[in-house]
Amino acid sequence: MFTVKKFGGTSVGSVDRIKAVAQRLIDAKNKGEKVVAVVSAMGDSTDRLVDLAKQISKTPNPREYDALISTGENVSAALLSMCLNELGVDAISLNGSQAGVQTEAHHTKAKVKKVNPDRIIQELNAGKIVIVTGFQGITDCNNITTIGRGGSDTSAVILAAALGCDECEIYTDVNAVYSTDPRIVSTARRLEQISHEEMLELAQAGAQVLHPRAVECAKINGITIHVRSSFETQEGTRVKELKNMENEKPVTGVAVKRNEVKLSLLSVPDTPGIAATIFSQLGKAQINVDMIVQSTEVNGSNNITFTVGNEDSEEAYKILEVIKKEMGASQIDKKDNISKISIVGVGMISQPGVAAKMFETLGNNNINIDLISTSEIKVSCAVNNEDADKAVQLLHTAFELDTPAE
Amino acid sequence: MFTVKKFGGTSVGSVDRIKAVAQRLIDAKNKGEKVVAVVSAMGDSTDRLVDLAKQISKTPNPREYDALISTGENVSAALLSMCLNELGVDAISLNGSQAGVQTEAHHTKAKVKKVNPDRIIQELNAGKIVIVTGFQGITDCNNITTIGRGGSDTSAVILAAALGCDECEIYTDVNAVYSTDPRIVSTARRLEQISHEEMLELAQAGAQVLHPRAVECAKINGITIHVRSSFETQEGTRVKELKNMENEKPVTGVAVKRNEVKLSLLSVPDTPGIAATIFSQLGKAQINVDMIVQSTEVNGSNNITFTVGNEDSEEAYKILEVIKKEMGASQIDKKDNISKISIVGVGMISQPGVAAKMFETLGNNNINIDLISTSEIKVSCAVNNEDADKAVQLLHTAFELDTPAE
Repeated sequence: MFTVKKFGGTSVGSVDRIKAVAQRLIDAKNKGEKVVAVVSAMGDSTDRLVDLAKQISKTPNPREYDALISTGENVSAALLSMCLNELGVDAISLNGSQAGVQTEAHHTKAKVKKVNPDRIIQELNAGKIVIVTGFQGITDCNNITTIGRGGSDTSAVILAAALGCDECEIYTDVNAVYSTDPRIVSTARRLEQISHEEMLELAQAGAQVLHPRAVECAKINGITIHVRSSFETQEGTRVKELKNMENEKPVTGVAVKRNEVKLSLLSVPDTPGIAATIFSQLGKAQINVDMIVQSTEVNGSNNITFTVGNEDSEEAYKILEVIKKEMGASQIDKKDNISKISIVGVGMISQPGVAAKMFETLGNNNINIDLISTSEIKVSCAVNNEDADKAVQLLHTAFELDTPAE
Repeated sequence: MFTVKKFGGTSVGSVDRIKAVAQRLIDAKNKGEKVVAVVSAMGDSTDRLVDLAKQISKTPNPREYDALISTGENVSAALLSMCLNELGVDAISLNGSQAGVQTEAHHTKAKVKKVNPDRIIQELNAGKIVIVTGFQGITDCNNITTIGRGGSDTSAVILAAALGCDECEIYTDVNAVYSTDPRIVSTARRLEQISHEEMLELAQAGAQVLHPRAVECAKINGITIHVRSSFETQEGTRVKELKNMENEKPVTGVAVKRNEVKLSLLSVPDTPGIAATIFSQLGKAQINVDMIVQSTEVNGSNNITFTVGNEDSEEAYKILEVIKKEMGASQIDKKDNISKISIVGVGMISQPGVAAKMFETLGNNNINIDLISTSEIKVSCAVNNEDADKAVQLLHTAFELDTPAE
């Protein structure tokens, strides 16, 4: 039985932690598993490499940037394998090239095209624990690539798929996915399972346990992700395909994303392609846009409103100023210190009134809603930062997510 | 015209130094050279990786050790290439695998079997400056190797040979090879050229400018090594095949190697294979033996004497104690704080009396000689550490090496 286990930067952040991971892998091997471990770089080692690159260039050559920052994973993979060997267990580290992770040539954010797992399987069948560097791959021309955001989680899921596994274990510094952040709501409920779709929405709404891309990838390949703690043996949360959910509660979790900035372009003439122009300009500048709302004024012109992270707000404002002139919009509005509160649940598809209940709960408690956006299984409201914790607590209770008193 | 330039750890030890190296490469390119730069890891970065490995295992798995410590060169190569790109010059970094450096599978000290320079040539002909990681290669099975001591110097020489170059430039923190250490003898003479053989003997006698292996490799492949400063533009010393040296002075240089320990096993029965036993045992323990002298006593038994580095002396002593019992030798002698002084010169082959003049010079100045060993072009004497500087100065003058007063 092949199993894939991914360990993030914190889990391999020191020699002692690497030793703990090694022990964990040995325990799994002793249970009969043929283990592949996917590792991130140690702690902040990638940040240190990025810092070196920045000292040399503001826009480093992408191929060289990949050659540089991929070395962090090589270090942790070699150390972990070395540690297993030291403990008397046969192991081998494989980098992206050796592991057969073939990607596009789009450096710093290459998509994985294909995994050729021959060598991994050969080493596993020879009785070895196989350590694979996360986050990196190789192009057809033998150039090193990195696969961008959510890299190592995604590497692990893709390898699990290539090896025909049903499940991929992701070890992290939290022990499960919760109905909301337990630091905000002490009665946050530990989830035994959650659907890929819900996890996707939660992740995009600010829950930082798993990167959305890895969840997406798991969904496409039918892989269950088991999120669990590197420091405990207890099982965590399974992110999986869930069926027969008619009886579920409408809401599975509440997420919060803080420090966004709301920007509005007011009285934009209602001609086709205007939203496209705005958001393609922002995209070119690598600005991640979060909520987008378009509304129509009485006179037929449009208001386009969206939120971006605080760090991108100045640049976004500058871009809007240019567009405003070109389009003859009347003005730009900017509001800082916004938090996005989201309720997520597959159950809300079949239960009407969920959004209304959210607005009511916030309204009854004098929390002003700045912006609303919805998807099939998510409702998000932008509120002031200082109302965020209270909003999460109220919604968590309103949707009956609190752990029952025992 | 292909040229190969090697930059050591000090030369790429900081972002500023990497920038200086980049400028140097650009200057060469502008002169019409097609430049390959071979780089070591930045400053002490390899030491830091070694330290991590040691925290995990006293005897790290060699394959993983190689995977680990080879990352240092990947970092410096990527940064240098990035820097060139930032300066508007097309460049590419290639690791051992990409550069086609094929080695044996003997990890941590793999010998280079063959270089396939196709990709290097292709990138050079595309107008790029090519940066190659020193010290590393790849096995037939796509495993990463390192090539051991003197690694990056040797990589550079081998690449120069593979590319059909006559010369390989090695940039270092000294500006030339001198007739002796200028810190000891202020009149030390800067050598414009020196033969491979002399450089080999000087290197083995303690001059640390070039690793003997790189010199050996240059000699075999008929490559001239140009040793020069990373920080100056002036030319340095050419280590090359020299002919017609009948008129040369008998001695080219004086070298010193300090802090050795002399060990003797006395009254060893004169049976065949005894020296083999002793030195194979020491070899197994990875102890580097320097001078070896065997003498015969009146009664027909042997004394075997050798020197080792201070750091190895305790372990060597323990090994001798075991051998002493097995062989029934009478005793072990140990003397600390020995320095080996060597005079080196191809000219001494044709000029008798050179060794005698050395012994005389030392004897006349009350410097006691503990041990003597000779090769065709070298005479070495072991003296007390405190006599070492004086011995070097006296010999430098006696063999007419002092720079003439101007």
